[in-house]
Amino acid sequence: MNRMIDEKIAQAVDILREKRIDAWLIFVRESATMPDPALDMVVGSHCTWQTAYIITAGGDTIAIAGSLDTANIEQHGHFRSVRSYVEGIGPELRGVLKDLKPKKIAINYSTSSPMADGLTHGMYLQLVEYLNDTPYARRLVSAEEIFAALRGRKSPQEIRHIRAAIRETLDIYDLVTGYLRPGLTERKVADFILREVRKRKLDLAWDPDHCPAVFTGPDTPGAHTGPTNRTVRPGHILNIDFGVKVDGYCSDLQRTWYIRRKNEKQAPREVVRGFNVIRDAIKMAADYLRPGAICWKVDMVARKHITSSGYDEYPHALGHQVGRAAHDGGSVLCPRWERYGKLPYMKVEAQQVYTLEPRLTVEGHGVATIEEIVLVTPEKTKFLSKPQRRLYLV
Amino acid sequence: MNRMIDEKIAQAVDILREKRIDAWLIFVRESATMPDPALDMVVGSHCTWQTAYIITAGGDTIAIAGSLDTANIEQHGHFRSVRSYVEGIGPELRGVLKDLKPKKIAINYSTSSPMADGLTHGMYLQLVEYLNDTPYARRLVSAEEIFAALRGRKSPQEIRHIRAAIRETLDIYDLVTGYLRPGLTERKVADFILREVRKRKLDLAWDPDHCPAVFTGPDTPGAHTGPTNRTVRPGHILNIDFGVKVDGYCSDLQRTWYIRRKNEKQAPREVVRGFNVIRDAIKMAADYLRPGAICWKVDMVARKHITSSGYDEYPHALGHQVGRAAHDGGSVLCPRWERYGKLPYMKVEAQQVYTLEPRLTVEGHGVATIEEIVLVTPEKTKFLSKPQRRLYLV
Repeated sequence: MNRMIDEKIAQAVDILREKRIDAWLIFVRESATMPDPALDMVVGSHCTWQTAYIITAGGDTIAIAGSLDTANIEQHGHFRSVRSYVEGIGPELRGVLKDLKPKKIAINYSTSSPMADGLTHGMYLQLVEYLNDTPYARRLVSAEEIFAALRGRKSPQEIRHIRAAIRETLDIYDLVTGYLRPGLTERKVADFILREVRKRKLDLAWDPDHCPAVFTGPDTPGAHTGPTNRTVRPGHILNIDFGVKVDGYCSDLQRTWYIRRKNEKQAPREVVRGFNVIRDAIKMAADYLRPGAICWKVDMVARKHITSSGYDEYPHALGHQVGRAAHDGGSVLCPRWERYGKLPYMKVEAQQVYTLEPRLTVEGHGVATIEEIVLVTPEKTKFLSKPQRRLYLV
Repeated sequence: MNRMIDEKIAQAVDILREKRIDAWLIFVRESATMPDPALDMVVGSHCTWQTAYIITAGGDTIAIAGSLDTANIEQHGHFRSVRSYVEGIGPELRGVLKDLKPKKIAINYSTSSPMADGLTHGMYLQLVEYLNDTPYARRLVSAEEIFAALRGRKSPQEIRHIRAAIRETLDIYDLVTGYLRPGLTERKVADFILREVRKRKLDLAWDPDHCPAVFTGPDTPGAHTGPTNRTVRPGHILNIDFGVKVDGYCSDLQRTWYIRRKNEKQAPREVVRGFNVIRDAIKMAADYLRPGAICWKVDMVARKHITSSGYDEYPHALGHQVGRAAHDGGSVLCPRWERYGKLPYMKVEAQQVYTLEPRLTVEGHGVATIEEIVLVTPEKTKFLSKPQRRLYLV
C-alpha cells in the first residue's frame, strides 16, 4: 500500500509538469466521513481538522494539519514536510504558498467527473476566504486533468491487481453457472455469490446494496438495483452485474444466462440474436478503441450496431474506467448527453482500462448484457477479461 | 432502518417549517464514493447518476433520478414521487421547482460544519448552471440550520441506540483493565479490543486506523494516531480513545489508566492530581451545560479550570456531538479559534448529545484524559456514560 502511494505521488509530479500546473492542493477535513477520492491514491490516511496536502511540480510534498493530526501523517511518511497549526490553517497555508509562489494551483472540483470532485462547496468557500488577500485565490484551477491522467494511466502493477480481481470474479461466475436453476430467487443467487466472496476473503467492488445485482426475466429494472425475491423461471434471461476488490483494485463484469424451458435444447432464436448483437457490439467497439479516439465515437460504434439491428439504444454509457473504484472517473465512453458534460469529447489514452457494457431488451425474456474489461494500448485493445462468447445455458 | 429514515424525514419537514425554509434539496451523484452525510439520515440508498432529493415544508418528498437509479429509490420507498430522466436532470429539476415555487431552497454546504457540507463544489457549479435562467439560483441558502437541528435533536429511540453503544464500550474497557500489564505494546492492547469488537459483532465508530487509539507513556502524540509498537511500562499513564456503532449509532469514550511501579500502592501524587483536574473540569462543564448556553462558554468552563490549575490548555474543543457519526456535526463546544468558524457562537439545545473530553499532560508520565457522553435536557445534564471517577490502577 505504502509503495503504491509513493508511486502515485511520483506519477503526479510528472503529470503536474506535463500539464504545466505548479501545485496540486488537496484540501479536506473529517476526511473519513466523506473521503475525497484523491486521499486513497496519494495520501493514504485520514484527518480530522482542516488539512492541506500540497504536491508540487518540483517534487515537494507538504502537509499542513491540525496539531493532533500531524503525528499520523508523519507515521504514514508520504509527505516530507508536515506543518502544524492549532487555531487556524490560514496563516500557515498562506505562508507555504508565499514560499512556493505557484502560478497555477489545481484543486479538486469538476462538474463532469465525480472522482475529481472531492472538494466540498463549503471547503471551497473557506479556501477562497483564506486566500482572499493573496494573488493565489485567482490562480485556482480544476484538477480534472491531473485526475484523468493519474487515475487513468495504469501502471503494470495496477493492471496486475485489476487482472487478479477479474480472475476471482470470473471464477465465481463459473460456479454460478453450476448453481443456477429455476425456482431460486434473485436474492438466493446473490447470497450464493456473497458466500463465495467471504470464503475467498474478498471485498465487494461497490455498494453491497446492489453488488452483486441479479436480474431475472422480463419484469426487472435491469440495472442499479438490489436482488429481490423474484423467482428464476424457465424462459428467463438472467443477468448479473458483480465485481470484487483485490489489493485495492476493482473488477466490474456482467454475464448473461438463459434458463431453458422443458425440452428446449437451445435458447430461442430471438434470445440468441439479442445476445449476439451485444457480443458483436463489444467486439466492434474494442476494435475501434485506441489512443486518440474521441470517447463519444467509441460509444457510437456499439450504439449504432444495436439500433441498426432493430433494438432500442441503451440508456447509459458504453463504458467507464475501472481502477481503485469500479467507476474510476476520468473519460467515459458516453454519448453527448447533458449529464455527461465534457466527458464525451475527451480523448482515449494508452494504459486506460475501460468496461464495455452495452445492453438491450429481448421482449418477453429479459435483458441481454455483457460487461467486459479492456486495456487500451498503442496497438490492439487487449481484453483483460476472457470475453463471454456464447450465452450460458441453464 | 426504514422506520428511522421516515422518522427523520418527518422531523425534517417540521424543521423546515420552523426555520421558514420551503424546500431542502440534496444533490448528489456516485454517492457511495463520497457519501453526503444527509443520505444516511433521510434517503437510505445510493445513486450513480445525478440525483435530486427534495423534501418540502409542505411534506412533499420528490426524487429526480437517472432512469437506471429510479427502481432502487422506489424499492426503498421513502420518496413518494420518483421522476426519471435519461439525458440530463436539468429540465425535470427546473420543472419540479417551477411547480413548487420555493422562496428559499436549502442546499448542503457549510464552511463551519463538515456534516452539513455534503455538496461538492463541482455539483454546486452544475446546479447553479441548471438553474441559471430561473429565479431559483438566487434562492439557494445553506442547509446548516436544518442539519444542526435534524442531527442534534435526538429522539428517544436514537438515545437508546447511543446508550447501547456506550454500554458495549464500557464493558470492553472493563475487560481492558483486567488485561493491561507492563510489557504489552499499544498494538497488542488495540488488538485485544478489536477481538472483543469482532466477538460481539460490533462495528467501529470511526476510521479503523485509529479506533481504538492507545497511548502509553510520556512520548506519545496523545490523539488521532494509530497504536504503535511502543511498550507499556511502569510509571506510564495509558489512555485509550475508542467507540463502537450499534444500530447505526456511535459511542466515543476515553479512559485513563496508571501502570504502577514496583512497590507503588497508588499513583504518584502529580498523576492523581492531573487526573482529578480533568474529572472535575468535566463535572463543572456538565453543570454549566444547558439549553441556551453559548458553546464557547461551556468550553471555557473546563479550559479555565485546567489552566488555572497550572496546566497548558488542550489544543482542541471540549466536546462534539455524537450520533450516527462519532463526530456528528452541528454545534461544537469549542473555543473561538479561526478553524471553528461560527460554531463557538451557536447555542446548545435540549436533546443534544455531546462528548466532554478535556486533556492535560502530566510531565514524565503521559496524557490524562477522560471522555464522557452527556445528554442536554431542560433540567440537569444527564451522563449517558458512567463517568470515570478514579484513575484505573494496573
